[in-house]
Amino acid sequence: MLLRLRASLSDSERHSILKLCKDLGYSPKFLGRAESLLELEGPGGPGDRSQFEDHTCVVQVIEMSESCELTARPSQGEDTVVTVGQARFGGGWASLIAGPCAVENIDRLLTIAGSVRDAGATILRGGAYKPRTSPYSFRGLGVDALDYLATAREKTGLPIVSEVLDPRDVEAVGERVDMFQIGSRNMSNASLLDEVGRTTTPVLLKRGMASTVREFLLAAEYVLAAGNPNVILCERGVRGFDNVTRNLLDVGAIAFLKERTHLPVIADPSHAAGRADLVAPIARAGIAAGADGLIIEVHNAPEEARSDGPQALSIDEFKRLAADVRTLLAMDGRRLSGDASADSKHSSDSDSNRGDSTRPESLEVKHHA
Amino acid sequence: MLLRLRASLSDSERHSILKLCKDLGYSPKFLGRAESLLELEGPGGPGDRSQFEDHTCVVQVIEMSESCELTARPSQGEDTVVTVGQARFGGGWASLIAGPCAVENIDRLLTIAGSVRDAGATILRGGAYKPRTSPYSFRGLGVDALDYLATAREKTGLPIVSEVLDPRDVEAVGERVDMFQIGSRNMSNASLLDEVGRTTTPVLLKRGMASTVREFLLAAEYVLAAGNPNVILCERGVRGFDNVTRNLLDVGAIAFLKERTHLPVIADPSHAAGRADLVAPIARAGIAAGADGLIIEVHNAPEEARSDGPQALSIDEFKRLAADVRTLLAMDGRRLSGDASADSKHSSDSDSNRGDSTRPESLEVKHHA
Amino acid sequence: MLLRLRASLSDSERHSILKLCKDLGYSPKFLGRAESLLELEGPGGPGDRSQFEDHTCVVQVIEMSESCELTARPSQGEDTVVTVGQARFGGGWASLIAGPCAVENIDRLLTIAGSVRDAGATILRGGAYKPRTSPYSFRGLGVDALDYLATAREKTGLPIVSEVLDPRDVEAVGERVDMFQIGSRNMSNASLLDEVGRTTTPVLLKRGMASTVREFLLAAEYVLAAGNPNVILCERGVRGFDNVTRNLLDVGAIAFLKERTHLPVIADPSHAAGRADLVAPIARAGIAAGADGLIIEVHNAPEEARSDGPQALSIDEFKRLAADVRTLLAMDGRRLSGDASADSKHSSDSDSNRGDSTRPESLEVKHHA
Amino acid sequence: MLLRLRASLSDSERHSILKLCKDLGYSPKFLGRAESLLELEGPGGPGDRSQFEDHTCVVQVIEMSESCELTARPSQGEDTVVTVGQARFGGGWASLIAGPCAVENIDRLLTIAGSVRDAGATILRGGAYKPRTSPYSFRGLGVDALDYLATAREKTGLPIVSEVLDPRDVEAVGERVDMFQIGSRNMSNASLLDEVGRTTTPVLLKRGMASTVREFLLAAEYVLAAGNPNVILCERGVRGFDNVTRNLLDVGAIAFLKERTHLPVIADPSHAAGRADLVAPIARAGIAAGADGLIIEVHNAPEEARSDGPQALSIDEFKRLAADVRTLLAMDGRRLSGDASADSKHSSDSDSNRGDSTRPESLEVKHHA
Repeated sequence: MLLRLRASLSDSERHSILKLCKDLGYSPKFLGRAESLLELEGPGGPGDRSQFEDHTCVVQVIEMSESCELTARPSQGEDTVVTVGQARFGGGWASLIAGPCAVENIDRLLTIAGSVRDAGATILRGGAYKPRTSPYSFRGLGVDALDYLATAREKTGLPIVSEVLDPRDVEAVGERVDMFQIGSRNMSNASLLDEVGRTTTPVLLKRGMASTVREFLLAAEYVLAAGNPNVILCERGVRGFDNVTRNLLDVGAIAFLKERTHLPVIADPSHAAGRADLVAPIARAGIAAGADGLIIEVHNAPEEARSDGPQALSIDEFKRLAADVRTLLAMDGRRLSGDASADSKHSSDSDSNRGDSTRPESLEVKHHA
Repeated sequence: MLLRLRASLSDSERHSILKLCKDLGYSPKFLGRAESLLELEGPGGPGDRSQFEDHTCVVQVIEMSESCELTARPSQGEDTVVTVGQARFGGGWASLIAGPCAVENIDRLLTIAGSVRDAGATILRGGAYKPRTSPYSFRGLGVDALDYLATAREKTGLPIVSEVLDPRDVEAVGERVDMFQIGSRNMSNASLLDEVGRTTTPVLLKRGMASTVREFLLAAEYVLAAGNPNVILCERGVRGFDNVTRNLLDVGAIAFLKERTHLPVIADPSHAAGRADLVAPIARAGIAAGADGLIIEVHNAPEEARSDGPQALSIDEFKRLAADVRTLLAMDGRRLSGDASADSKHSSDSDSNRGDSTRPESLEVKHHA
Repeated sequence: MLLRLRASLSDSERHSILKLCKDLGYSPKFLGRAESLLELEGPGGPGDRSQFEDHTCVVQVIEMSESCELTARPSQGEDTVVTVGQARFGGGWASLIAGPCAVENIDRLLTIAGSVRDAGATILRGGAYKPRTSPYSFRGLGVDALDYLATAREKTGLPIVSEVLDPRDVEAVGERVDMFQIGSRNMSNASLLDEVGRTTTPVLLKRGMASTVREFLLAAEYVLAAGNPNVILCERGVRGFDNVTRNLLDVGAIAFLKERTHLPVIADPSHAAGRADLVAPIARAGIAAGADGLIIEVHNAPEEARSDGPQALSIDEFKRLAADVRTLLAMDGRRLSGDASADSKHSSDSDSNRGDSTRPESLEVKHHA
Repeated sequence: MLLRLRASLSDSERHSILKLCKDLGYSPKFLGRAESLLELEGPGGPGDRSQFEDHTCVVQVIEMSESCELTARPSQGEDTVVTVGQARFGGGWASLIAGPCAVENIDRLLTIAGSVRDAGATILRGGAYKPRTSPYSFRGLGVDALDYLATAREKTGLPIVSEVLDPRDVEAVGERVDMFQIGSRNMSNASLLDEVGRTTTPVLLKRGMASTVREFLLAAEYVLAAGNPNVILCERGVRGFDNVTRNLLDVGAIAFLKERTHLPVIADPSHAAGRADLVAPIARAGIAAGADGLIIEVHNAPEEARSDGPQALSIDEFKRLAADVRTLLAMDGRRLSGDASADSKHSSDSDSNRGDSTRPESLEVKHHA
């Protein structure tokens, strides 16, 4: 049996729940640093479950056999909608995240940010800490880049997402971004998942390059189990045997995830394609399979980009793609966040479950916790 | 140097071209049984190429370094449009191929055939010879099934496609079908490719389950090199490491192929998904990535199907998918073959590049029109 | 229920067994062209099985659920030993097959054949019909090459193995070789498997480049079900995502197969490595994992070889490898066929389970002994 | 240009080298937290390189194009021998690492430790922090387990290796273990690689489950670039499409790595096989392909093990495997560390480059820094 505890317990609360466990004959043990999951071993009795459920520190009692409980669709009747500024993901809403691969300088960033906002993006992406295969490659500008992103947010109104690589950086990055990105290389990094799980900042979690869908969901489960319900899954292509594309976008996984989990699912066609000429058709395929949005590398001068240049779309290409996305979403009665007309039309809908009509300036997250 | 020869040379013509080769100092050798490719070895001279080009038996002179010459887009300015009855593939046209996995009995086949025609299909598919992993599995009804398919064509007007597994069956199958299917397991079966290449019947060529795109194009090159220009490439998913879907539909390969080759490309979402609930989103992804059509398993009572039942769509599901496909095609100004309104609208269009009215002689194939 | 029938039934025998089936209320149907498997559908009764078992045309009665029955180890207490000339595979014996990738000319072939025999090979390999990715590549010398191989057998005493690609060639190739090779591309070619299954010539069956072990065993089952028990499985590497080697030799599959099936298993390190410098360590790994032999490309002037040259070992490299193989086999009390001392030593052993002296009738195959 | 700096520079030293860079017109930037790599951008001049080489803070000047410089064999004439207690890896020495998957209790650990030492192991492995797919799985006993391991070292004399998952744990784990293990999931975790790279404790680096060999070498390059030369590469199988084994041991990669890098390479047959019955043949294959040792899960009661039980060898199975390994190593004139006779024989060799004859009690590392 596992107990999921409330975040930020006081010492006396922690003592109280541990005492109850021991009194009932269990040997309790915390799983992970986050101390939000307490594993109980011992014979126990049939009435114990309800005693734990009644305790004020306990959010949920989980049987060991019910793995993936928190990500599974049956656990909630409807989609989780993750909201970041104007962007909404899930529940009939899709959003576009766009920006340069790595943040290189403030002028270029501002140019790109303004352009992608005008073209339909509602979140700005930009790499501050870059995971690199070689230790000798450019690893990003770090905190300087985060400050540039904050400036861009101020000037454009776009919330920002950036990758965090190290659990020791979670606090500093969390103070500056509106959404964490966990990259493919770190999908199975439990320390990092635990750490972002202890915040309430939304998390964009990318699938590992050879991870099964079950492993992907269990990585999200780490974040949810640590207390953060705001996870967006991102399919970015798995490693294949051919090299005409950098990775193989798994549209079947997107379709399957939309059935299996209540969490929103988006696609990253830039890393799947690895070449600009194939980004748009792959992006369209992702939306057609059911994705709730896209994260795309866009550059105002793709040929000059220092990292991953060949896969960045130009501003014009992004604008054309955004138009296609609108058409694809309309097929299913879905909408792109940030579209003025769509939003106003939507706010008159009776479908009040989807999104929320009053959004504060910078960042709001509504969830069912 | 390779010489591609006209099909059906007389003995004296064959003698004449072999004599020319030897007179010029080459040692000629036929590649494959089809005797349509003649490999020349020897020092040769700079003027030889033009002498061969002038010979009436020679269709084309190919330098050894120019592999994939016939499938490559640069070799023709525009898309090849393959036409099978009302169905057109390529050049802005897409078509739906539908039917049961294996042909089981005539009544069921007629029911399914009529239903898929009414729902938008323009070709009927049905397995007569089934490739099976186990020797103890049902391998199809063979010639009986082909006869049932012929009856269904007569009653519904739909042309038929069925798989051929053995080079010795090419003649018998070719007499009965309007398009050959070469399955994944046989993509690299040169004998079979040579044999269907000697006909003019269109060939639906499926990608091997772990074949690269280059290998796929070279398999098509076998058919084209043997003299048959009517090849439709079919992406049906590659083998992956996960099992939530049976295979992984490679939408990047579809997008890449549309750039690289003038041949039409379709998708097989049924074998990619391996489960009915994911067929429609995967099919939509394929069209959104640029596919010129779909081949889908449809069954009027999917739960009773003897082979591959769990992946067959019901008639109603297929009808809804066809509606989605129309919307997706319209996004790009493409059209679904067989749509009465679309066809009449199309013939009044000025867009004469799309469709078959101006296609060159050698590529036009009409079957049972 | 399936009936496996004797090969070469007369018309009256065939009529007799079909009549029995119908009299008992079954509807019988042949699976495949070989007409060695008869599928029965119908309710049937509990005593039917023994009636079929008693019929003189029936070799075996197979329940549909018992797939892989013939390849499974439980079906025979001990290893099948496949014997080809002096070469023995299985039951504690291993053998080396060596020779050029493609047969190019008689002089070179004789040189290589003599050298590999002196270095420890007991079978000569050589490609007559070559499967090629491109239609414009050298496809082998065909029947001429087979005749060269026959000459080499005469001069060196080595039996020969060569690939057959087309079911129409099985008869002609079978007249000239001592063992058929079925290549990776044809592992799932049921027509070809049926056809070689109707002979008694041993079959070297290579695993498909992305085939599961279960699919591999079921391919062998095709040959056994058609009546030919003399199958050697060959692991040659599966397709991976890296390119430091051409394929990934699956040593775990070798170890697994040795547990699961009574058939001999060998390794092809040449196609796994794709580069000469890695052939020897990969070959050693295969034997250490349990393989009953190797098939190796050897060339007296590897740099001049027309096809696959970079992966051919020189004569000296092959000789050194053969010495390593002897040491590895000795670790398990296994022996290399053709070693004079080993053979004589072996015949005086009490270990009569190993080797061919007590093998049952149906499995014994002697060629050109 | 990159400068690799000495570890533990004083502030004034750091200032001095940064000043030199700026004086020569470069804009310097540290790569990663370890501050051991300084990237220089700017035009620079032809004589700059030698000025940097002369600076006392600079260990090495690396041109950007020379990636993988430190792991590449050409950079050192001979094998790096990594020594951990009596265990030596590389330069003709191999060693066996054995122990339970997870450390569960002190009694069982002591039993296993004593048994594997007597059977030939020279390092004890045991999981204290376990990477798990599910947040609800047992994640190891943490520091308690490390203390148990330290006790086992004291009682048996075996040095210990254990996995570190979090950069924040590197110091605490480093105080207790003789070798860090970096698991497959963390092969690309640059923060963790940087952190262990700042120590001199040997690092056992496992290949990612879908990492190319180049990516694997670049991960090792992170550790070497940060200043720690004592890296042992561990091939543990890559993810495949079949499930008869858990992973696919890439023996070709082992052979390739032994050519390409001077670092020792070992194999992990337990995680490759995923089932005890195939561990021994896969282990033998790894050694036969050139591996300098093995890491094996051994348990005195495999059926009771809490994590990964089905793949643990019993003590007896491990003993038999150790005997096979000795035979395989002898084939190449290699030796197993810890074998009394081999060691004494070796110390009389003139081959003084291999290993070192005088070893202190617990842990010694000799490297070329």
